[in-house]
Amino acid sequence: MNDFTFYSPTYFVFGKNKESETGKYVKRFGGTKVLLHFGGGSVVKSGLLDSVKKSLEAESITYLELGGVKPNPRSGLVYKGIDLCRSEKIDFVLAVGGGSTIDSAKAIAAGAVYEGDFWDFYQGLPITKALPVGTILTIAAAGSEGSPDSVITNEEGMYKRGASGEAIRPAFSILNPELTMTLPPFQTACGATDIMAHVFERYFTNTKEVEVTDRFCEAVLLTMIKEVPIVVANPLDYEARANIMWAGMVAHNNLCGVGRDQDWASHDIEHELSAVYDCAHGAGLAVVFPAWMKYVYQHDVMRFAKIACRVWGCEMDYDYPENTALEGISRLRSFLKSIGMPLNFEELGALEKDIDKMAETACYGNGRTGEIGGFVKLKKEDVINIYKLML
Amino acid sequence: MNDFTFYSPTYFVFGKNKESETGKYVKRFGGTKVLLHFGGGSVVKSGLLDSVKKSLEAESITYLELGGVKPNPRSGLVYKGIDLCRSEKIDFVLAVGGGSTIDSAKAIAAGAVYEGDFWDFYQGLPITKALPVGTILTIAAAGSEGSPDSVITNEEGMYKRGASGEAIRPAFSILNPELTMTLPPFQTACGATDIMAHVFERYFTNTKEVEVTDRFCEAVLLTMIKEVPIVVANPLDYEARANIMWAGMVAHNNLCGVGRDQDWASHDIEHELSAVYDCAHGAGLAVVFPAWMKYVYQHDVMRFAKIACRVWGCEMDYDYPENTALEGISRLRSFLKSIGMPLNFEELGALEKDIDKMAETACYGNGRTGEIGGFVKLKKEDVINIYKLML
Repeated sequence: MNDFTFYSPTYFVFGKNKESETGKYVKRFGGTKVLLHFGGGSVVKSGLLDSVKKSLEAESITYLELGGVKPNPRSGLVYKGIDLCRSEKIDFVLAVGGGSTIDSAKAIAAGAVYEGDFWDFYQGLPITKALPVGTILTIAAAGSEGSPDSVITNEEGMYKRGASGEAIRPAFSILNPELTMTLPPFQTACGATDIMAHVFERYFTNTKEVEVTDRFCEAVLLTMIKEVPIVVANPLDYEARANIMWAGMVAHNNLCGVGRDQDWASHDIEHELSAVYDCAHGAGLAVVFPAWMKYVYQHDVMRFAKIACRVWGCEMDYDYPENTALEGISRLRSFLKSIGMPLNFEELGALEKDIDKMAETACYGNGRTGEIGGFVKLKKEDVINIYKLML
Repeated sequence: MNDFTFYSPTYFVFGKNKESETGKYVKRFGGTKVLLHFGGGSVVKSGLLDSVKKSLEAESITYLELGGVKPNPRSGLVYKGIDLCRSEKIDFVLAVGGGSTIDSAKAIAAGAVYEGDFWDFYQGLPITKALPVGTILTIAAAGSEGSPDSVITNEEGMYKRGASGEAIRPAFSILNPELTMTLPPFQTACGATDIMAHVFERYFTNTKEVEVTDRFCEAVLLTMIKEVPIVVANPLDYEARANIMWAGMVAHNNLCGVGRDQDWASHDIEHELSAVYDCAHGAGLAVVFPAWMKYVYQHDVMRFAKIACRVWGCEMDYDYPENTALEGISRLRSFLKSIGMPLNFEELGALEKDIDKMAETACYGNGRTGEIGGFVKLKKEDVINIYKLML
């Protein structure tokens, strides 16, 4: 096991109607003037935004609204939010929405107290200072409600990059599974795929003897395999929504990743897909992961056999463990298909002609030096081969 | 799933030689004058205390020493610590040791800023204010390094009681698995039993559809079943020590317990044993848990069958699930025996003649009103029957 630090100080408030307590928590964590950040339609139409506003007003907290966050959130709106925070002396950023809104809020919170261009953080500068952020989560997916991470798409060139720092971990996050019930099955499944992907990125490691984190990873995956088909069939199942929502947080606050090297090549490979085609991140990951697994499984057949047996319920083939490894990948594909995810370029709307450009950007774009991934180091040629497995 | 809040803001620093960074973390969390609290021999002899002192001195942090914590820590030393904190204007309590030392430090930290008798907290008053506490853990067991709980034995009457409050969650905890390597196999196994018991108390619940926390509970138990026999055979196995140490934290910071009712009758039943006979808490739990399980399993046979199959590797008996449930309990007993734990009163040094008195105190002592446990509510007669199953 590697040495590590683990610090997840977010105050999680989980359950029915908890958004009505937002004002109380903003106050507890020092907010007096709030930037209320959100996307568009559903948060307004459902009455959620009104309920949050009422709760702020009840605590005499003032707020300014900044809506318009899009999936794969853009740098343009972040600049606008930073300007607002500075000119209006905002002291708290409150995100109402999914991972995109939360990531945008984190970028604004960090940029507002930084003299330079906030994009510096997305080129590798660690975030050490930010306004406090609170979240009211509406989609179980990105895990941004408990993570120190943010991913933003730069509009000049349409490439996605991530930034990180303990300062942008939310001070509090309100998780009400009811708020996720209106999500259509496709978006629900995209979110579920993202959650599982966060675990895969951590599961495939070269660090030996990390049984405890292996078991946590498996715990999240087994939960998802049980609960996701239930909500895809019945979006109103509160209990299944609740299990998925909490699993989504744990999948990405790094409890599943401490003490071990991690991979993250598949996220890099997917980020090009969603940046170029603006597809849902989870849908992109559904296409990328089985391809990546097929390309790298021979690097550690027994690890792939382990997940196949423990998570996918395969029988171990003691004579030919690679058969078990491949059967696990095959069951992942079947599972993704069963919940309505795309499995190839065509279903995703991606084009073969863009492969070279995407592989180039994934490996060399924005300061990278030609290699991605921790479990298996991939060069541009490897990334091209992985994209080709998705055709 | 029940509504819940989850807040675990402790900064965990995990790995080799991390105690040499103690001063840095005391400073980060606001300490300038420290009460250095510890037990006795091994912490001094091993040089650990000297290493911690050096690290404090390097940051110009002053300290006063208060050693002498005993297993099942006593109220007398807590009063002494509180007096010291007040008279010397201590602003940080640093525990170097295991759960007993940490629990004693928490009691001192809460009592130092409370005008009344600190024992009020152990009679049910929630702890809302305390000096910050840091820990350097030397035994994987109690989980006190990440919990909001403390258990103290009142010397007037020798009864153990617990207190709780977010204010006594450690600000930071340093977990170096090397520090646990000198622990003899029996103490190691007692700690492991305590860790597993913390999970059992949460696993046996009447709350339905809490798959995600069921899976986390199982993750911790499966880790223990793999790793504990390794360290009992080879105390110097760093990797196994590391897995157990982290599992011990997760078993009790309530990640395994959120969203569900919990039981805790077995802890109440055990507390009488260790209060009366001063036995190791883990050893007491090894005697109590299989007896409690046998007494209550018919309340929810399928939950006992689930843990039997998922954790103990039993085959499900679909015709007679109670056979599977009982086989799981039997495998727990075999496991505890294999790691050197006692399984009955005689092996523990307990006496049949004390049963009535202990059952009386467990159910009625110190403000209780005749019933303990959440999964199955137990009256004095039930507790007597459970003690008798340990003969």
